Parts: sequence; C-alpha cells; structure tokens
Amino acid sequence: MTDFGTEDGYVGAMKGRIFSIAPQATIVDITHQIPRYNIRFASFTLLNIFPYFPEGSIHVVVIDPGVGSRRRALLMEVGGKIIICPDNGVASLIFDRYKELKIYSIGTDWISWDISTTFHGRDIFAPAAAVLAAGKEPDEIASPLNEPPVNFMLPISLLGQKRLQLRVLHIDHFGNIITNLHKSQFEELGIHEGVKLKVTHGFIYGIKKTYSDVGRGQYLLLWDSSGYLEIAQNQGNAALSMNIKENDELILEY
Amino acid sequence: MTDFGTEDGYVGAMKGRIFSIAPQATIVDITHQIPRYNIRFASFTLLNIFPYFPEGSIHVVVIDPGVGSRRRALLMEVGGKIIICPDNGVASLIFDRYKELKIYSIGTDWISWDISTTFHGRDIFAPAAAVLAAGKEPDEIASPLNEPPVNFMLPISLLGQKRLQLRVLHIDHFGNIITNLHKSQFEELGIHEGVKLKVTHGFIYGIKKTYSDVGRGQYLLLWDSSGYLEIAQNQGNAALSMNIKENDELILEY
Amino acid sequence: MTDFGTEDGYVGAMKGRIFSIAPQATIVDITHQIPRYNIRFASFTLLNIFPYFPEGSIHVVVIDPGVGSRRRALLMEVGGKIIICPDNGVASLIFDRYKELKIYSIGTDWISWDISTTFHGRDIFAPAAAVLAAGKEPDEIASPLNEPPVNFMLPISLLGQKRLQLRVLHIDHFGNIITNLHKSQFEELGIHEGVKLKVTHGFIYGIKKTYSDVGRGQYLLLWDSSGYLEIAQNQGNAALSMNIKENDELILEY
Repeated sequence: MTDFGTEDGYVGAMKGRIFSIAPQATIVDITHQIPRYNIRFASFTLLNIFPYFPEGSIHVVVIDPGVGSRRRALLMEVGGKIIICPDNGVASLIFDRYKELKIYSIGTDWISWDISTTFHGRDIFAPAAAVLAAGKEPDEIASPLNEPPVNFMLPISLLGQKRLQLRVLHIDHFGNIITNLHKSQFEELGIHEGVKLKVTHGFIYGIKKTYSDVGRGQYLLLWDSSGYLEIAQNQGNAALSMNIKENDELILEY
Repeated sequence: MTDFGTEDGYVGAMKGRIFSIAPQATIVDITHQIPRYNIRFASFTLLNIFPYFPEGSIHVVVIDPGVGSRRRALLMEVGGKIIICPDNGVASLIFDRYKELKIYSIGTDWISWDISTTFHGRDIFAPAAAVLAAGKEPDEIASPLNEPPVNFMLPISLLGQKRLQLRVLHIDHFGNIITNLHKSQFEELGIHEGVKLKVTHGFIYGIKKTYSDVGRGQYLLLWDSSGYLEIAQNQGNAALSMNIKENDELILEY
Repeated sequence: MTDFGTEDGYVGAMKGRIFSIAPQATIVDITHQIPRYNIRFASFTLLNIFPYFPEGSIHVVVIDPGVGSRRRALLMEVGGKIIICPDNGVASLIFDRYKELKIYSIGTDWISWDISTTFHGRDIFAPAAAVLAAGKEPDEIASPLNEPPVNFMLPISLLGQKRLQLRVLHIDHFGNIITNLHKSQFEELGIHEGVKLKVTHGFIYGIKKTYSDVGRGQYLLLWDSSGYLEIAQNQGNAALSMNIKENDELILEY
C-alpha cells in the first residue's frame, strides 16, 4: 500500500527489489492510490484489509512525507502477521484495535545497498518485507521500540442530552461517508437504533440494513462492512451531494 | 473485475479472503475501474478478456448496485472456465456468445462467516471463487438456476434501404468507439466493405485495416481486436472529437 | 508496462494470453498509466525499474502508436534480463545506459493465431514474453537486428560561462521535476555543488540531501532515487507551482 500512484515506476522498483531478494514471494497490490501524504486514509484502509489476510502475510505501507528525516521505520507483529511502515501515525487505527501488537524499530545494518534519501519504499520497507519472506526473523533486522509510536486519535465526544459528536473518518470511492463510530461503541453505549443524524437540510432517521432499503437517490445510515456507521445515498454519491469532507464533524442524536 | 476503484481497501479485502481460503491461488487483476454500476461496460470487458484465459480460470465480476437486495448470485461454467457474478445482466454478452453455458445460483450454506449487506464481493463472490480454486465443485456451493438470468439486449436494427441502425457498445480508454456490429453479423448480411457511416459533419467511408492507414487526426472505421466495428481517430480521441457517447445510435449505409 | 489504462480489458487479455502459454508465470504490473503514446515517459520509467529486477525477468513494454504499421518489434537482452517492445524509441534511455545490449527483431513465424492490426500487445508482445518464460530461446522467435533501432536523444548543452542547458525528462506523480542531468555527468564535469538553477521568480541554490532539508512549501534541488537532478517542493507539487512541463529547458549555473 502506497501513495505513489501507478503512473510512475516507483511501485515497480519496489516489486523488482522484492523479487530480487525473495523470488518465490507473492506480491499483492492493495492500493497505490492513497491520496498523497494522507496518513489517516491509509490507516483506515489498512484496518479494513488486515483482518482478511492469512497468517504469514507481510503488509508494507509506504505513506511517507518524512522520508529522509529521522522518523523511525516500524515493524509490527500480531497474530502471525506483520506490518512494515514509517512511524508517522499510519498504523494508529491498528494500535487501537490490536492491543497485543509487538512493535519494533527497523535498523539498517542488514542493508548492503545505497539507501537513497527520498525512496525508503524501495531501499528499506520493501526489502525488509522481502528478507522476512525469505526467512529472516524480525529481530534480525529490528529491535524493540523504546518510545511509543506516533499515534493520531479521533475520539467520539459525548455532548450530553443524548448527543454524540462524530468525525468523518473516510470518504470512499462511491462517496459513502464513514464515521468514527464503531458498532461496538454504539452497543457499549446501549443506544437503541432510534437515532437521527443531523445533515445540512434536515435529518437522516434510523439505521438501515442495506442501500436498497431506501429509494434511488435517498440517504440512509447503515453499518459499513467493517462495522463503522456509514452515511450513504442509494446509487448516488453522498459526500458530493451533501458536501461533506474527511474530518468534518457530525452530530448524532439518540 | 470490479467497479470498486483502487483507492480504497475493498479489492484488498477480497484478495485477503481469497488467500485465506486458497493460499496457492494466483490472483489476476483485470480492472477495478469499471465505471460505477456500469453493467454494460463490464459485460463488454468480460467478453473481451474471457477467450484469452486458459481452462481452469475463475472469473469474479463484482458490479453490484443491487448488493443486499434479493438479486441472485450466479456461477457459470463453459469450456472448463468459470464466471461468478451478480444476476444483473453483467454477463449478457457472455450469454449471447456462449450458448452452451451452464448456469447455477450460488447459495450461502457453505459460508461460515457473517455476510455483510453491502459487500458481497468480499463475503460471497471472492470466497466462492476461492473455494472452487481450493477444490470444491460448483454443485457444492450452487444449484441449477430455475429462472432465466437477467439479460440486456442491444439489437442491430435493419432500417431498410441498405441502412443499419447500430448502437455504441463501449468507448475505450483511447476514445475509440466500439459499436454493437460484429464482423460475423456483417458477413451474414453479405455486406461488401463499401460502407459509409454517418457522423455529425459528414461520412466515414470504407473499412480500414489499421490506424495508420489514415493520416494523423483522421477518422476511420475498422474491426476492433474482438471483431466489433470500431470508429477511431488516428492518434486522437474519436469519442471526444465527435462528442459520441455510450449507447448513442449510429446509421451505417451500405 | 503499457499506456492502456486499467479501465478496459486490454491488459487483462494480455495476461490471459500469457497464462495460456506459460501457466507458471508470475506477472508483475509495472504501470498501465503511461500517458497515451508518451514514449519518453515510458523510457524513463523502464530505466528506473529495470535495475531492481532479478536475472530471468522479462519486461514487456507496449506503448505503440504505430501498431499495425511496419515498425519492428524488438527483443533485447542484457545481464540475463529481457525487454520486449516496439521499435519506436521507447528503449532509448536503456540503449544509452546499457551499451552491451543484444538487440533482435521479433518475427511472426512462431505465432499460430490471428494477429490483429490494432493489438500487438495481446497478439505479439505478451505472447513473445510468455514463450520465453515457457522455455524458448530468443533466437527461436527473433533474429539479429540489421539496422539501428529508433532512438530519441535529450543531450545536455554546455552553454559556456559555466552554464548548462538541461531538459525536463519527466514529471512524476508528486510533481517532482526530473531533469536529464545524471549525477555521473555532473561528476565528470567536475562541478562542485555550489550550483544555482534559474526558475521563473529567481534561483534555487545548492543541492540538498532530502525533502525535509527545507521548510514545508520550499523548493530544493536533490539527486532523485535514480541519480538524476530533481527539482522538488517539500510536501508540495513543484511542477504545478512553477508551471514547468515535460521537455522544458532549464539553465543551471555553477
């Protein structure tokens, strides 16, 4: 997963390096269209794909505006799966969901080639994944992290009078608006589904099961496929129609 | 093949699930840039790639505006190859070309995880392909279809006076305009190649062999690489230059 | 690597054909977003990914505005790696960097299917790679080239008075401007790093190590990850901000 786009050869060079080290590897493109430098977007995407991959998978995430600076390179291990990424918050939602994560800082002792100052994806992150795929253990290339990793938070605020302040976590390809309210929190709060969400020209009432529970062009609330509260427009683009953007605040009444 | 785009983690989650069920699978991205909900576009793309894949290939097509509604999930078998898709017309051109197709409706008995109402790509279609790749037979997850599948038609109309009314089946990445007239129909009608196609400011005459048979910027007719009549502009974008859109009508005289 | 985009089935058909001939092949997408017909862009991308791939890799490059004309199809061999592409200059930067290249012209004797006049990617280039992957030798499908291949050149001009005229070789996804001045030429000229580059509203001074050596939004010069002189804007889009385009001229003083 990168924000490199697919026009240039950046991703190709990373793949080449992986195959040079681990010819038997299977490389899976998650996405290279993360909006440039958008750490939050990448964090959400990582959280959404990670549970579906099997043990032994190694996830390389390169959204790295601080490349060449002194930011650390992280290696994380949980449930037999590994994540490799810069220490810039891109794994924040993973920290939040997987409390049993082991976190290491990747060194450079194991690297025999020149490390460019602008492309650690090719020179550190992808090769780190490749040497693990080829049989090295995490502690051969990394050491335990001695300071906490960079983390961003998007808390839900309880406003009182049965109101919650949510934030927009993500706008997806279809214009669906994904909020930071997870079904598990909703259930912890003991909320019945008689909710209403305030939007520009009124309210959206209740939580539906699927898009086609409302007419074409109508808005609805539902739990998205990862368990977050989503605002959608049946066969339309909710974010565009309602002019809602990432990180916007929303008020949910119950 | 999906209309999910490649910005989000949707395709990644499908791939993760496939590898969790069938670790030895080879996953081939056809395209995830099918225009949103454009069943006709996907149908044309499927028809164009299907013949080139070998026996044993399993094609997963998720263009699914009706996800979560009662639309069926199809499994089709022809020539040792399988197609898995929603029953919404996306396989119409395949129905038309492969009369010997065996068609099944996919059940959910074999599924042990929660099925979300909004993402059957991850929860039904991709896993159906994966369990087949891992050795299951179609009749272990699907049963024969008892009603005909959804089908869209784009017939060619004979207008008399040696005129045919065609429709635009597809505009490709280069702006080439692909019509619904296949070379085999053309030959059945016994047309000689002295044809002319009416466009906004005049006619395009004759059928050429290749783009460079005309000067740069000039229009031409030719048979596209799948055998459909195509309108092109040498090193230009015919659809943009002539303002022609998908599903437009065109008159061919012969 | 192609300029076919990923909306249509063109790339998928190429992949299908490869798997039909060489079922054990591993296919790696480099990019299908090369700007249409942009041979220079593709040449630069190929140069940037090629060194990172292992021996035995076969690189298929289809940017082919002359498809169907009499342009030749090339097969090149260097360091145990192969490149297959049309003879239209797309390998120019490879010719320049790898003087020991063996170059062949691909014939069509070995092809048993119809060759369309518009899609040699599917009918010649991808299958040529596949038959090599499946064990054929280059001289079974190609013969030595008897005339030099098409080549484009982008020389650096020495203007005298310690000034060099550079050209913009490439604008990348981040808006970084890559010039045609390679670090090796720079060192051959014996230039100290006290350089200044003239841009619209002034000069950029000196060569930095990495983006974060300057403040957010500031411009800098640095050596890109392939060794070319690059103009960047820390966390910004230099090409957009300075309105600089591919092939523009730039003056470097030293």
